[in-house]
Amino acid sequence: MPAVPSESGTSGSRTRSWWGWGYVDAHPDDAECVALGALLPGTLARPLPVPRVADLAVARPGVTPPASLERIVTADPEARAAHAMGKAYRDVIRALRGRAGRIPDLVAYPTDDREVAELLDWAGDQGVAVIPFGGGSSVVGGVEYRGEAHRAVLSLDLTAMGRVLEIDPTSRSARIQAGAFGPALEDQLRPHGLTLRHFPQSFEFSTLGGWLATRAGGHYATVHTHIDDFVQSLRVVTPAGTGTSWRLPASGAGPSPDRFFLGSEGTLGVITEAWMRVQERPRHKASASVSFADFDRALEAVRAVAQSDLAPANCRLLDPGEALLAGAASDGSSVLVLGFESATGPVDGRLADALDLARAHGGRGGAPADDREAPADAAVSAWRSAFLRMPYLRDGLARMGAVVETFETATTWDRLPALIAAVRAEVGATAHRATGHPATVNCRLTHVYPDGAAPYFTVAVAGRPGAEAEIWDDIKAVATDVLHRHQATVTHHHAVGRDHRPGYDLQRPEPFALVLRAAKAALDPRHVLNPGVLVD
Amino acid sequence: MPAVPSESGTSGSRTRSWWGWGYVDAHPDDAECVALGALLPGTLARPLPVPRVADLAVARPGVTPPASLERIVTADPEARAAHAMGKAYRDVIRALRGRAGRIPDLVAYPTDDREVAELLDWAGDQGVAVIPFGGGSSVVGGVEYRGEAHRAVLSLDLTAMGRVLEIDPTSRSARIQAGAFGPALEDQLRPHGLTLRHFPQSFEFSTLGGWLATRAGGHYATVHTHIDDFVQSLRVVTPAGTGTSWRLPASGAGPSPDRFFLGSEGTLGVITEAWMRVQERPRHKASASVSFADFDRALEAVRAVAQSDLAPANCRLLDPGEALLAGAASDGSSVLVLGFESATGPVDGRLADALDLARAHGGRGGAPADDREAPADAAVSAWRSAFLRMPYLRDGLARMGAVVETFETATTWDRLPALIAAVRAEVGATAHRATGHPATVNCRLTHVYPDGAAPYFTVAVAGRPGAEAEIWDDIKAVATDVLHRHQATVTHHHAVGRDHRPGYDLQRPEPFALVLRAAKAALDPRHVLNPGVLVD
Repeated sequence: MPAVPSESGTSGSRTRSWWGWGYVDAHPDDAECVALGALLPGTLARPLPVPRVADLAVARPGVTPPASLERIVTADPEARAAHAMGKAYRDVIRALRGRAGRIPDLVAYPTDDREVAELLDWAGDQGVAVIPFGGGSSVVGGVEYRGEAHRAVLSLDLTAMGRVLEIDPTSRSARIQAGAFGPALEDQLRPHGLTLRHFPQSFEFSTLGGWLATRAGGHYATVHTHIDDFVQSLRVVTPAGTGTSWRLPASGAGPSPDRFFLGSEGTLGVITEAWMRVQERPRHKASASVSFADFDRALEAVRAVAQSDLAPANCRLLDPGEALLAGAASDGSSVLVLGFESATGPVDGRLADALDLARAHGGRGGAPADDREAPADAAVSAWRSAFLRMPYLRDGLARMGAVVETFETATTWDRLPALIAAVRAEVGATAHRATGHPATVNCRLTHVYPDGAAPYFTVAVAGRPGAEAEIWDDIKAVATDVLHRHQATVTHHHAVGRDHRPGYDLQRPEPFALVLRAAKAALDPRHVLNPGVLVD
Repeated sequence: MPAVPSESGTSGSRTRSWWGWGYVDAHPDDAECVALGALLPGTLARPLPVPRVADLAVARPGVTPPASLERIVTADPEARAAHAMGKAYRDVIRALRGRAGRIPDLVAYPTDDREVAELLDWAGDQGVAVIPFGGGSSVVGGVEYRGEAHRAVLSLDLTAMGRVLEIDPTSRSARIQAGAFGPALEDQLRPHGLTLRHFPQSFEFSTLGGWLATRAGGHYATVHTHIDDFVQSLRVVTPAGTGTSWRLPASGAGPSPDRFFLGSEGTLGVITEAWMRVQERPRHKASASVSFADFDRALEAVRAVAQSDLAPANCRLLDPGEALLAGAASDGSSVLVLGFESATGPVDGRLADALDLARAHGGRGGAPADDREAPADAAVSAWRSAFLRMPYLRDGLARMGAVVETFETATTWDRLPALIAAVRAEVGATAHRATGHPATVNCRLTHVYPDGAAPYFTVAVAGRPGAEAEIWDDIKAVATDVLHRHQATVTHHHAVGRDHRPGYDLQRPEPFALVLRAAKAALDPRHVLNPGVLVD
């Protein structure tokens, strides 16, 4: 058995959960679960027990690795269980109900491109499915094998390749291995005064490779949103060969090679490293919040800010339900949180201009906090803590038998109000009908663009014991249908995986489906890479 | 014979040149050509005569269109000659020397998607090559058939599809047909207070479809540079079917379908329309210029501006030779032209900050012009006129037997100084060796990024009579080799076409070459679309 890197078991001294979000020591305990359950009428009286690997029927591996790869491959049940699924609500509730997905036969931890290529060759020879795996934080069934077509399943864990290999301070670029977790790569950039500044909610538990393969969205509301825009060059190992694009600030030479592998979700090749555009660390910050009596007027305010050239780092609109949960308002107001950051100069002027726009659309309050003072930072920090805590609370509610999950989308401004209203009405009605309990459907805008915005929905309702996953599937099917009817994307930044395939197949233009199938056949002719994701 | 749209002959009352840049009435006359030639030692005493279509051996078409398509197809020799080549120096000098490329057999002017699809079907049945054609301003051999593999050649002119079909002011978006020329689409957006704000040098003579198919770069130095970023949705007609992507501000659902067709240069399908992100028209402008005794220090100043968040609309660095030609400096200084624009608020502060950065790196001068005063606008306007006049002057010099052409690239900051020095030395030496005359190699930076910049080179040298095209080919081969050795892209915004294929094949990662070939086979199985471009 190899030396297993920390992320599948412990990180430093903290232990990662194999079935739920994040660190075991951060999970709500039984008493906290009960308190959470009390917020949602109809949940269980006592939490479901924490599942144990020992209770899983982990079968003997259906295949053995060749001697040359033995030292980087393990059949350890704990490691295999931790690689069986992602971290969606669907995954968590299935683990809690003793219905985990198919456990991979083996987990491999390659340390370089050559080993990745060898593993792909071996898998092709043996008919073994390969599931590329970064931090395993997928919420769309992206890292779980489903089906029977392969004789065995190998989880290809990239986290032994987690270093920043090279930094070019002149061009503000860094060559980073795909398996680097968010905190580790920031730790390696910090001494140089640089940052990738990509902070998805999963930041602690996801990797650069995962961000690239899924076209992740970061924390920032404008400009610095999509990981795509910060890729200078990619290195990809495919069953048909390895390639590296040139390090370029821009190019007009044919369709972008990088943009084709970004979002390919491990189906066309394994991204092993990238040159990323990094930034000077912001020194100037300013933030404030504004409340609105009317959500639709708040949408107009956000649109005005998004269509200006003020480029807020944070422009997060919370509807009354979200504002209540975040402790930002309890009077039925919607709350807009505005934040600006810069490494160049003070941002107070931009904040003031944005607040003027918000007030012109009926916003109240919002005295800008001086960017050198503590309060704004404290508010942002409190909000950030709550944000990072959310998935843990979701798992606590899951232990109380609740159905609680989020989904996100994006659409143009002209269609946004009708979309949000339709989601609230139809998803809420479905959740209520399926459970007999009142359902909460909250909405926040997380990312904004001159031409549209990305709403993020949270659904919470008490489930029927044992039927929670199926109830969520019903709710999700309705949500997918609403998004399709409004031509809102099936995902703004969570990826397609296996869970979003029905919506994705409706959304994807047919000529591009032909391209993907042809590319799959050319790059992965033995169909071993992440079967079932994106293409068949 | 069909009603031929104006762009192949006359636009309003002005006649387009079939062999040279732009309008016939804007061409330098013989006396001006002689004056231009006097600037370059060794050129001819008298200009080469203006070529005439009557002198071309325009053969009878090798194929006839079916009756159903007759009304949109012409075999008129003038129209066919005007669709034989693009507008590179190489094209102009070949026309002047009576060596024009293969004249297409027919020119079609479809008016809707159905006609485009019918033409593709017919061409597939007949083995006829189809060259999609917008404004015909390609400078990379993108619209010229080469080879013998097809029994006939059809130029597919999209300019009968030139309308803005729909405007969504709420989402700041417009649905525009691919054949719309720059001025026509701006004219249609202006009454709504909107602009696409994409101003390539070819603006008057190129179309939206051409910009999209070649991933064009606009006039602006930062942020608003690449047409790619302003695409909300594309409609593409391929021989295997037609598809439209959803109108979305952003999506993380698989690899971007649009990004795969952007830059496909008519090889995978015909882009017939797009929803484009448009903008409010800028109301605030400010500009100034700064001079530098040392070009390398000027590069450092530009890098500082590019790595700030000031986002200048113009950040154009002219080396001493360029500055002399532009009338910006005659003392051997390099000149940095900075400009800012906004629809949101005054930009004087941003200009002042940028000037501070420039002065900190040795820049002199640069009192910012008040954005309501005339001088700055006048300077920008003068510069813009000169910029738009350049291709006409190139053709005047070509008539004097000069070899005069530009090429552009992009690379990261760390490699930029060495790249520029190598181009100057090696291209200059080759031009001198090939002609026996002193050569001018000038450089300007046109687009800047936090991680690099796009230098634009101009080469001018007297040719050897009759050998001008071959001399340029030799110079270009050396330039391509220098770019390859420095891993600088073969094109930042001019596209690949046929002329850049050798450099492109070196640059493109092999797995992506497999993807392109597979996509070509899937979408264009009878290989009729723009043969020889990007893939074989």
